[in-house]
Amino acid sequence: MSGFFVHPQGICETAEVGEGTRIWAFAHVLSGARIGRNCNICDGVFVEDDVSIGDDVTVKCGVQLWSGVRLGNRVFVGPNATFTNDKHPRSKQRPPAYARTIVGDGASIGANATILPGVRIGVDAMIGAGAVVTRDVPARAAVVGNPGRVTGYAGAVELDDASANSLPQDYGPSLIRLDTHAEARGRLYVADEGVIPFTPRRFFLVDKVPVGEARGSHAHHVSQQFIVAVSGQVVVAMDDGRRAYSVRLSHPGIGVYLPPLIWSMQFGHSVDAVLLVLASEPYDKSKYISDYSEFCSIVSRAGGD
Amino acid sequence: MSGFFVHPQGICETAEVGEGTRIWAFAHVLSGARIGRNCNICDGVFVEDDVSIGDDVTVKCGVQLWSGVRLGNRVFVGPNATFTNDKHPRSKQRPPAYARTIVGDGASIGANATILPGVRIGVDAMIGAGAVVTRDVPARAAVVGNPGRVTGYAGAVELDDASANSLPQDYGPSLIRLDTHAEARGRLYVADEGVIPFTPRRFFLVDKVPVGEARGSHAHHVSQQFIVAVSGQVVVAMDDGRRAYSVRLSHPGIGVYLPPLIWSMQFGHSVDAVLLVLASEPYDKSKYISDYSEFCSIVSRAGGD
Amino acid sequence: MSGFFVHPQGICETAEVGEGTRIWAFAHVLSGARIGRNCNICDGVFVEDDVSIGDDVTVKCGVQLWSGVRLGNRVFVGPNATFTNDKHPRSKQRPPAYARTIVGDGASIGANATILPGVRIGVDAMIGAGAVVTRDVPARAAVVGNPGRVTGYAGAVELDDASANSLPQDYGPSLIRLDTHAEARGRLYVADEGVIPFTPRRFFLVDKVPVGEARGSHAHHVSQQFIVAVSGQVVVAMDDGRRAYSVRLSHPGIGVYLPPLIWSMQFGHSVDAVLLVLASEPYDKSKYISDYSEFCSIVSRAGGD
Amino acid sequence: MSGFFVHPQGICETAEVGEGTRIWAFAHVLSGARIGRNCNICDGVFVEDDVSIGDDVTVKCGVQLWSGVRLGNRVFVGPNATFTNDKHPRSKQRPPAYARTIVGDGASIGANATILPGVRIGVDAMIGAGAVVTRDVPARAAVVGNPGRVTGYAGAVELDDASANSLPQDYGPSLIRLDTHAEARGRLYVADEGVIPFTPRRFFLVDKVPVGEARGSHAHHVSQQFIVAVSGQVVVAMDDGRRAYSVRLSHPGIGVYLPPLIWSMQFGHSVDAVLLVLASEPYDKSKYISDYSEFCSIVSRAGGD
Amino acid sequence: MSGFFVHPQGICETAEVGEGTRIWAFAHVLSGARIGRNCNICDGVFVEDDVSIGDDVTVKCGVQLWSGVRLGNRVFVGPNATFTNDKHPRSKQRPPAYARTIVGDGASIGANATILPGVRIGVDAMIGAGAVVTRDVPARAAVVGNPGRVTGYAGAVELDDASANSLPQDYGPSLIRLDTHAEARGRLYVADEGVIPFTPRRFFLVDKVPVGEARGSHAHHVSQQFIVAVSGQVVVAMDDGRRAYSVRLSHPGIGVYLPPLIWSMQFGHSVDAVLLVLASEPYDKSKYISDYSEFCSIVSRAGGD
Amino acid sequence: MSGFFVHPQGICETAEVGEGTRIWAFAHVLSGARIGRNCNICDGVFVEDDVSIGDDVTVKCGVQLWSGVRLGNRVFVGPNATFTNDKHPRSKQRPPAYARTIVGDGASIGANATILPGVRIGVDAMIGAGAVVTRDVPARAAVVGNPGRVTGYAGAVELDDASANSLPQDYGPSLIRLDTHAEARGRLYVADEGVIPFTPRRFFLVDKVPVGEARGSHAHHVSQQFIVAVSGQVVVAMDDGRRAYSVRLSHPGIGVYLPPLIWSMQFGHSVDAVLLVLASEPYDKSKYISDYSEFCSIVSRAGGD
Repeated sequence: MSGFFVHPQGICETAEVGEGTRIWAFAHVLSGARIGRNCNICDGVFVEDDVSIGDDVTVKCGVQLWSGVRLGNRVFVGPNATFTNDKHPRSKQRPPAYARTIVGDGASIGANATILPGVRIGVDAMIGAGAVVTRDVPARAAVVGNPGRVTGYAGAVELDDASANSLPQDYGPSLIRLDTHAEARGRLYVADEGVIPFTPRRFFLVDKVPVGEARGSHAHHVSQQFIVAVSGQVVVAMDDGRRAYSVRLSHPGIGVYLPPLIWSMQFGHSVDAVLLVLASEPYDKSKYISDYSEFCSIVSRAGGD
Repeated sequence: MSGFFVHPQGICETAEVGEGTRIWAFAHVLSGARIGRNCNICDGVFVEDDVSIGDDVTVKCGVQLWSGVRLGNRVFVGPNATFTNDKHPRSKQRPPAYARTIVGDGASIGANATILPGVRIGVDAMIGAGAVVTRDVPARAAVVGNPGRVTGYAGAVELDDASANSLPQDYGPSLIRLDTHAEARGRLYVADEGVIPFTPRRFFLVDKVPVGEARGSHAHHVSQQFIVAVSGQVVVAMDDGRRAYSVRLSHPGIGVYLPPLIWSMQFGHSVDAVLLVLASEPYDKSKYISDYSEFCSIVSRAGGD
Repeated sequence: MSGFFVHPQGICETAEVGEGTRIWAFAHVLSGARIGRNCNICDGVFVEDDVSIGDDVTVKCGVQLWSGVRLGNRVFVGPNATFTNDKHPRSKQRPPAYARTIVGDGASIGANATILPGVRIGVDAMIGAGAVVTRDVPARAAVVGNPGRVTGYAGAVELDDASANSLPQDYGPSLIRLDTHAEARGRLYVADEGVIPFTPRRFFLVDKVPVGEARGSHAHHVSQQFIVAVSGQVVVAMDDGRRAYSVRLSHPGIGVYLPPLIWSMQFGHSVDAVLLVLASEPYDKSKYISDYSEFCSIVSRAGGD
Repeated sequence: MSGFFVHPQGICETAEVGEGTRIWAFAHVLSGARIGRNCNICDGVFVEDDVSIGDDVTVKCGVQLWSGVRLGNRVFVGPNATFTNDKHPRSKQRPPAYARTIVGDGASIGANATILPGVRIGVDAMIGAGAVVTRDVPARAAVVGNPGRVTGYAGAVELDDASANSLPQDYGPSLIRLDTHAEARGRLYVADEGVIPFTPRRFFLVDKVPVGEARGSHAHHVSQQFIVAVSGQVVVAMDDGRRAYSVRLSHPGIGVYLPPLIWSMQFGHSVDAVLLVLASEPYDKSKYISDYSEFCSIVSRAGGD
Repeated sequence: MSGFFVHPQGICETAEVGEGTRIWAFAHVLSGARIGRNCNICDGVFVEDDVSIGDDVTVKCGVQLWSGVRLGNRVFVGPNATFTNDKHPRSKQRPPAYARTIVGDGASIGANATILPGVRIGVDAMIGAGAVVTRDVPARAAVVGNPGRVTGYAGAVELDDASANSLPQDYGPSLIRLDTHAEARGRLYVADEGVIPFTPRRFFLVDKVPVGEARGSHAHHVSQQFIVAVSGQVVVAMDDGRRAYSVRLSHPGIGVYLPPLIWSMQFGHSVDAVLLVLASEPYDKSKYISDYSEFCSIVSRAGGD
Repeated sequence: MSGFFVHPQGICETAEVGEGTRIWAFAHVLSGARIGRNCNICDGVFVEDDVSIGDDVTVKCGVQLWSGVRLGNRVFVGPNATFTNDKHPRSKQRPPAYARTIVGDGASIGANATILPGVRIGVDAMIGAGAVVTRDVPARAAVVGNPGRVTGYAGAVELDDASANSLPQDYGPSLIRLDTHAEARGRLYVADEGVIPFTPRRFFLVDKVPVGEARGSHAHHVSQQFIVAVSGQVVVAMDDGRRAYSVRLSHPGIGVYLPPLIWSMQFGHSVDAVLLVLASEPYDKSKYISDYSEFCSIVSRAGGD
């Protein structure tokens, strides 16, 4: 290869570096590493041999990329962010194989964040500064804290159930209010036939979701869904590939309707959260879309003309 | 009238007393009161003028029946049970009208219970000894405490969701277990199509029911229902006119299926109780049966041969 | 004395009975008892010797008045209401002296209530049916439950702090909203100079009031007060001798202003209730009015013309 | 029999009445009832046929004693206290047998209390005014409320664990403080060998005791015990037949040592109460003394000279 | 400039470096950066172009100072502490402007701390090792945790309300105990006239302060204040420019009196904390001192001689 | 010394480096530092003068070892892990002495962890990535979070009390189930004589252990123990020098039996945890083994043949 820059006080022992990439002072890239085009490898970065880095990646100062790390395209790694590749490190004891840590296209890892071994970080995820990521991160999830908790869906407009009217009229998903009766003897929430736009053929309940966990992160080819927080609170993110919204549901009188081909993630469960999900179709694993990039190309084709 | 007995030391100033009725020592019945047949008016009972008493009624010692009290047939009033007819009594101040207290056929009022003015007590209800009844009581409800709370369905066999198998095979209602998955990321309860024996065309959620309150107390001509406690606990009473059961539901993995023509009452809600009810039919008030006596004659005709 | 009526089957062994008083069947009044004018002593009532009863008193059926009981004028005693005069009764053991139970003028004791020995029940108090009264009851307090708890101020219009505008313009007391700032860093409620119509020269805080207890029950000759629930909830009753209101305070942004010569009682404290009271005057016991009857005559003179 | 008094307006249809007993106006005693000596049967009392009453008993006005009631000697029954003998009363339906309600020698039943059918009330128990007694009451237990809850041991000196020194030196039971270490990393309570005066051969833990319940109510011929509230609070009553004390235990650093021949009852458990009991002997039912009267005579013989 | 040292293996591309400053091995300072006198820029530090550093600053190994960072005089930056300047970093996407992060004179940033973009850190603040600072930090505040929470006032002697006597006699602020009455009907805390040394002309209440937040951080030219925790707990820091104390208030019976010219910060609010503040003066923004450095020079002049 | 490697772009100013040790690019070791044999000092590491490092130690990139740090043999220090030696750092202010931080043989410090000044980290401890260690860490303890909390025992097989059968038959410690009675009046757990294999001569209770704290961390030469969680939950780690297990105890019906010469640590206490420990021997400090290395050599000798 050719056309890449190495600072006089940087060390680059590999030739697998793409055009336009710059490697700065006190950085050290070992033989065997592969780096794409137009990357920026800043001062003091250390790259081991079994590492691959996509195109247009930024790695800020003080970062090490250990054997087993795979960075997609357009990944950002903030200063002093720290990767790992051995779950139970002991000096002079090498694990049979190094854990593989995979960072999806477009993801950002905040300054001084810590990434536990073997974690997969989804496409376009946003890891906050100082976060300690202990488990896989779904596509576009925003994660902060120690241990890291999902607290948002990157790029989504945030609504609560009092601002239900803010969802655009031409948007597929919608918020549906149930008929609510507050009586002296209790509250009643009714969905007579027709209130939700499909006949439920399947339902399930979800509770005891640990604080900071996310669920969902898939779309359906055919099934419609209706989600309501029958107890506690939850945030439902929805995304048609162009516009994303997240809605905090906080009482049983309002729910989210999701048509097919909407990517959805649920997070922000309160301790007492119980979710009811009604679905229009029986369970069929083959009708799920579980890869966000695949989802994006499907809806992009669908929306084209 | 004729054919009734008054003890030599009792006082009876009305002639409206049915055959076979006995009025005992130190009892005092004022002119204007009407008493049915085969009643037993025990020692020390006092009956005012604007009172009517059905047939086969027992009024134990130390009870007063004030103007405005109406007792149906087969009512039992325990010793020292106390009625009232003025919500804010002050000496020498008479309310514009006395509150009317109505006790349904077959109901029992326990010893030393207190009945607040204007309360209606349903058919076959069972008021516990010492209870203070501050609000209306549904048919067959059992009430105890101060203030009185519904704690049972009179005559029902009591089950919990661990004893689901105890419901008879030939009984219409049944308990249905959902498919349960306890995962690291939460618990999941699934009812795939076919698990409940109808397609839900309507559902509703009920929460915040005050402690001690009862709901339901009706039957459906056509609709089937499936009831599950998605959070907290509740007791579901069910009654086909011959056999009655009450089932305590305490987790989201099991629910009650109710076919048509089953009288049901729900009570014993925990503070965090949330009920999900799926129904086979759209809402139609005319398909409700809200009078227990009417329900009994419908199912009795239906079951006859 | 003369001019009173005894039913032929009643027994009256005292001559100390006022004109117009009626004693009914199976009632039994012992020698030594004193009964005022225009009283109604109903069937089955039993009156011991060391008892005094004022004028215009109603004693309903099934009541006993034991030695030591003193009833004021216009007292109402509901059916089967039960008095006591020995705190630790044992058969054949007589206490050195019987407890004295005093019921103030105009008070009502509900049906089947129980009054523990030695309790004082204030003027115009309203004891609910079935209540068990275990401690003294302030003037006009409404008491229900077992044990009895203060839950209202008899005859007051009930408001909450959302209905602040319902206090009449020409009424002395008023509700004052503080300037409220809800900030990300906390909530702030400000009373700049002039917001409350006096300069506070004294303040006090009240917390840990047991559930069901009442405090206050006095008026001030001179002092103005401002009361705010800085935590939790409380109900403040206020009474100018003609009109009475009770206001439930439930957050720190609104308080009650009380001018002089307003009788006030506080009750309905939540477990976490803390009250702040600002006063315009230093403490001076001689400026308190602690007797409700005296208060009524003072304000009646003041308001006369 | 002879030598008893019946008021001219009382009715006594039995001859089984002991000498010195008085039956007052409007009382009515049916044929078959048996009443002991020196009893006082007050105005308006009603006594059915299958009733027996011991000697020196007081039954105040407005009380009915139904078939199945058995009162021991020296029992006190307060005014309007109400007995029952049918758990599910329905008019014109007689149970196969009436429940038998037994009141032990020396017990007192407070005014307007309600006694559910079939309850056994122990020797010297003290039922508070207005209480609704729904379950058996141990000897000397004090009961109040609806439902009735054990709140004391009649006649005991009440201590808490801060007043441990108040137990007399010559009293068998004692309070033993454990060696307590409050450290930054937790609290530690140690009982080295010899701190408690026996070698534990058996221990048990008690938790989830319902509020208001009592446990124990027995003595041991041989076994020594050491009781400590390892979580929450409990009151331990102890009684050597002459002197009784109750001690509220509220933290794990202090326990009660009970030598043999001490009657003990535990009550007042907080919701989170867990009791640890160490015993010096293996379990042997024959070494228990479960009858308080028998206990009293054993210790009275033992203490004689 | 002249008179500064650069290690042979360090790189310094700016000439704006003050006398006495040392730049060590593997450090890299870009052109445009400005560094004051007597600073210590340790091994491996990286300094971008739009950065300014005051005098006497220490920057330990592994730190990067990005464009937009401004360090005052005498600032300490611990090893691997990490700054940021882009709130939503994405590779190859530059924000319109970099966030400006300002660190006040004398502040210390602990080892491995993370500073979110645009945060202002006050004079003499103390950021703990490993803290993640997500919001502005008041002068002298001590911050720890992820997210960072205010937990102290740097250099203050820590007291609680049980150690009230430890405040020096000659110190302006003082702790004042209210007159406390623990009654069966509740607790009462009274401040009669004269107990606090001014007449309140204004008061305010503060509640719902998020955990870890600080309030106050200013002094008054004229106003006196009295602060009491009427519910929950709070820590009040006070500082006369020479000596600083922080007092944990934990019940309504004791409060802090602050004379004029005392800098105060409140922090450590419990979830249920409600603060009452009485002030001697009406609100006048111009009488506040909100800059700690200005405060220090005012009290230093005032105290001089 | 001789036989160690320094990368051409590394700087090593000390000669006290053991054979086989390698010092890599951009690392900088100051004069005075002592490094053992076969160590790996990676890119960018900085080592001050008063530092000693044992044999076979790995120090990954981006780590600084400040004066006062002592690393034992076989220590692993992950990338960007950060040490400190001044509790209250201020620029240009040097503490009288630097805190001494000691890391035991075999311990591992995870990537990007922060070690507060003066902390002692026990033999074989495992500090998780991103942890902030604020207090001493026992031998083999696993620590994670900010602040760091003990959450495991390194290398132990993890069981709960439902998997009691998983402890090997030939393992010294065992789980013992108590006899459990769930009664209407409470739950009872009985250990009759013989259920635990020794006579308890000593017992103690432990409660209020802060979340994340560990206790124990010692073995006994002679004493046997039985540990039961009488309230709440706790994890008991046990280690015979060859195999280690940790058991989560979560109810009072099961406990852990520990024979002599078993090293045990308790951790993971829930907020309501109360532990009961029965011991076979009186307290004798000289029979404790409190040093894990000593324990290992004792059991290794004992197990030899």
